Amino acid sequence: MKINTIRHSLAHILAASAKEFYPKVKFGIGPEIENGFYYDFDFSSPISEENLLKIEKKMKELIKKDLKFTKKQVSKSEAKKIFKGQSYKLELIKELPSKTVSIYQTGKFVDLCKGPHVKSSKEINPDAFKLTKIAGAYWKGSEKNPMLTRIYGVAFATKKELNKYLEQIKEIEKRDHRILGKKLELFLIDEEFGSGLPLWLPKGALLRKLIMDFAVDTYLKRGYELVATPHIANLDIFKRSGHWNFYRESMYSPIKVEDQYFMIKPMNCPGHVKIYNSKIRSYRNLPIRFTEMGTVYRYEKSGTLHGLTRVRGFTQDDAHIFCMLEQLDSELLKMIDLTKYILNSFGFKKFEISLSVRDPKEKKKYLGSDKIWGIAEKALESALKTKKLSYKRYPGEAVFYGPKIDFLISDAIGRKWQLTTIQVDFNFPEKFEMTYIDKKGKKQKPVMIHRALLGSIERFLGVLLEHYAGALPVWISPIQILVIPVGSSNRKYAQEVAGKLKSEGLRVEAKVKAETVSKKIREGEIQKTPYILVVGDKEMKKKNIRVRQRGKGDIGESSLTKFIKNIKIKIENKG
Amino acid sequence: MKINTIRHSLAHILAASAKEFYPKVKFGIGPEIENGFYYDFDFSSPISEENLLKIEKKMKELIKKDLKFTKKQVSKSEAKKIFKGQSYKLELIKELPSKTVSIYQTGKFVDLCKGPHVKSSKEINPDAFKLTKIAGAYWKGSEKNPMLTRIYGVAFATKKELNKYLEQIKEIEKRDHRILGKKLELFLIDEEFGSGLPLWLPKGALLRKLIMDFAVDTYLKRGYELVATPHIANLDIFKRSGHWNFYRESMYSPIKVEDQYFMIKPMNCPGHVKIYNSKIRSYRNLPIRFTEMGTVYRYEKSGTLHGLTRVRGFTQDDAHIFCMLEQLDSELLKMIDLTKYILNSFGFKKFEISLSVRDPKEKKKYLGSDKIWGIAEKALESALKTKKLSYKRYPGEAVFYGPKIDFLISDAIGRKWQLTTIQVDFNFPEKFEMTYIDKKGKKQKPVMIHRALLGSIERFLGVLLEHYAGALPVWISPIQILVIPVGSSNRKYAQEVAGKLKSEGLRVEAKVKAETVSKKIREGEIQKTPYILVVGDKEMKKKNIRVRQRGKGDIGESSLTKFIKNIKIKIENKG
Repeated sequence: MKINTIRHSLAHILAASAKEFYPKVKFGIGPEIENGFYYDFDFSSPISEENLLKIEKKMKELIKKDLKFTKKQVSKSEAKKIFKGQSYKLELIKELPSKTVSIYQTGKFVDLCKGPHVKSSKEINPDAFKLTKIAGAYWKGSEKNPMLTRIYGVAFATKKELNKYLEQIKEIEKRDHRILGKKLELFLIDEEFGSGLPLWLPKGALLRKLIMDFAVDTYLKRGYELVATPHIANLDIFKRSGHWNFYRESMYSPIKVEDQYFMIKPMNCPGHVKIYNSKIRSYRNLPIRFTEMGTVYRYEKSGTLHGLTRVRGFTQDDAHIFCMLEQLDSELLKMIDLTKYILNSFGFKKFEISLSVRDPKEKKKYLGSDKIWGIAEKALESALKTKKLSYKRYPGEAVFYGPKIDFLISDAIGRKWQLTTIQVDFNFPEKFEMTYIDKKGKKQKPVMIHRALLGSIERFLGVLLEHYAGALPVWISPIQILVIPVGSSNRKYAQEVAGKLKSEGLRVEAKVKAETVSKKIREGEIQKTPYILVVGDKEMKKKNIRVRQRGKGDIGESSLTKFIKNIKIKIENKG
Repeated sequence: MKINTIRHSLAHILAASAKEFYPKVKFGIGPEIENGFYYDFDFSSPISEENLLKIEKKMKELIKKDLKFTKKQVSKSEAKKIFKGQSYKLELIKELPSKTVSIYQTGKFVDLCKGPHVKSSKEINPDAFKLTKIAGAYWKGSEKNPMLTRIYGVAFATKKELNKYLEQIKEIEKRDHRILGKKLELFLIDEEFGSGLPLWLPKGALLRKLIMDFAVDTYLKRGYELVATPHIANLDIFKRSGHWNFYRESMYSPIKVEDQYFMIKPMNCPGHVKIYNSKIRSYRNLPIRFTEMGTVYRYEKSGTLHGLTRVRGFTQDDAHIFCMLEQLDSELLKMIDLTKYILNSFGFKKFEISLSVRDPKEKKKYLGSDKIWGIAEKALESALKTKKLSYKRYPGEAVFYGPKIDFLISDAIGRKWQLTTIQVDFNFPEKFEMTYIDKKGKKQKPVMIHRALLGSIERFLGVLLEHYAGALPVWISPIQILVIPVGSSNRKYAQEVAGKLKSEGLRVEAKVKAETVSKKIREGEIQKTPYILVVGDKEMKKKNIRVRQRGKGDIGESSLTKFIKNIKIKIENKG
């Protein structure tokens, strides 16, 4: 028996069981899905998750009853009688193009359904499924329709498979950055302020700054120059860049300012191009590399928003490189090295690479000639080959202005996340009449590379939290060390220790409030603080500290000097 | 003779002289203004500034002719005959409510004018005035009317006064941050990108970052916590805060997102309030001080935009302090100390202070009860008194939600610039139902202080450039040191020196391109680089450098160690 058929049949049994408790329930639809099934119900008033247990129990009872799944083909008018009062089913019957419709009978329960199904409920393993959650879902997915109650279940062939899956789900839930964001007090999404627009709480804002400072410092050391551009700009510039034609769906609506229209920027490129064009450039100055921690705003449907990983506004560690055609290869190679350095620094060692090229059958979706697309795609591909990196080619996945390389990192539990993007672009230089003066004094067009290595800082942070399940490496932990005095007589010493650590540039908090030591330690552990130093009379006398390391617990007494030396090595190594 | 009368009479003589060269010219109006006068002309096609000299010469001739200024009262119909063809004058005659109008005859020139004027042109000193510039000006100041040509002149009683004034103007022009911004390659305002929206070039972006980093570091050390909030937010929150009612004219038009409206934020307060409200606050946690380098966007008429000092988007070193009423005084005192520290650090030592309070006659313009306004105004006033600071009281200048203190700094040539603002607010906490739990476990409302010490970073930077005429203190100079090799054989050593300085955390550029030393020095001086190090064979042999200090020229040979030591002391002291 195919597992999909079992899952679909379980949806019917779920509906049948629900009806036992809620005789007046109206049925929506109930398909199988990845790993399980769901059914949409109209209970008139919403039910709570606590009811899932009793419904699940009833399902097991029904399964054990050896219920048959009987298919019948009936006329539409007969079907209308059968589903009398079931307004959603009646709506579906009306919409079906055929003259007859197929129905399935399972015990007392009848559903409008094409199947296939199991022949009997005994083919289903009653221990290999579980109802998991309740969610709201609009009838037919449209906000204009009533909101129904969707009950989800997961189902497998064996109990072992089910348990394995549930374990994995638990692991994913433990790593959910939305929950960690609340627990670690990092960020907040407030519906009144705006969906998809994270507000950064003190620890999160600091973490975000640490990441951005690291990126900026690294880029400045590698020959990039910092620039900064506003978040709004005249619409005309986005018309000229092609965004208005090719990217409008992701852009917000224009703002009228006197007789002009302004846009919130979805991308930083136009500003950087304007800065390039603000003076005459010579071959001697190329490559020019502008970088900006640029906050952009892109429209996403409210239904698709998700924590930090899918938002409506985010900050990119953006950069645009302007170079001569003959410098393109070496710039791409440098960029791949830099990408590896940056991602490795945060502990991401494994990645998959995708090369997104134009769909040659849909040239209308892209700007620019065959020739320049050929050069650009070849440049990216040969850089990957030189670096001996394996990659997959994805036709039709290029940006409207050029092909790109994306790095998908693999997290601690093997999930893939797209972070880095490197894009070659000959089109912008053309649209904005960019030039440089070559050796012979002639005007030439530079090549432009768009790239963001962390991608969106928001998304990156979300991935980082999930990768480490919140236990961030010491070097970017907003609070690296907590100092806890055992008794009130140790408070002064605790503050002294904290002061010393702060003067060494470490991020420290002294917990001197009148609470128990164990409560303070527990709080520090919930906050996933890398080091908790406990100081009592004994430590105070010897001018020592007692160290608790995250994940290891008490690792013994230490001198402050030794502790500082060790933590500094760890920070230096980004360990 | 009053100088204003002389200035007004000069406007007539300007018009009379212009008519000699342009017989068909149509006249607008010609009043006296501060330091001089202007006249608006319709020359059919615009004239260039080169023509000012010949007009000025003609004016001097007319003045020396001892022309009489004769006043006459004539009927409107007679006036219409006199000003036949002079459409602007006819429009004015039509609008005058009286039956008769007064006119002034000066030689061949007649003007519609109430006076007063000098009796004869010989009362005017022909050497104490000067035509200064031409500008476009809409008839009656409305964009719907034709654009006229306005000729400006300055005039004083004596030649000495004129020269003094012209010197001062030259000084102001030399300090014009818009010109310095171009020369030092700091920022760019590009009309296609958007008026009033500065783009930061590499050196400017770095300078801006240095200033913001200094502010953030200082605030974090003084017990502030960093937060970050998006640039767009739901309109509802600005309705709730009162901005939509009281501040709409400065806000941009809403953006439609699905069935909601979003705004570009004109202020950072709502986000900070949301962060405060994201958890239960106890009296033990207060005061809470949130700071953000928050970029806000406010509408300004295109005609009022000016370089960095009046823009449409700017970044505030914003903060909001939430405290108990009994902590208000001490918070205000701390804030005044912090303001002084911050402003002093940038070399601003003198300031005027204004206390802006509510206009008790126009209570409708403000939110909140008499009682809370009383408390808030008194708190600010008593903080100023405690600090023994003199201040002026300005009724009617308060913000809609509360009274404020502004610091106006005095720059190197005595001009005043408003930078710091400190505002007390009881209204936000009420509108957003903010609370904290007091010692007895009861809910209380906190007080809120809004404050920006540098104010707008953009404006601050503009003022800083004008104050120092571009010669920024070493500690914030984007490039602190230039290293120039004398010959090609010294290039390697120059790079070695630059590398050493960089490793010491200094901002250095090695100029090793094949250009003459004098050209490189000149360029460095134009860029107002604090130190230029020249290294030739002699210096190389001794592992020394030759130091040129900004404003002083060559100050002799030095060891690198000594130079590093000295510049570090200077940076440390913000000298």
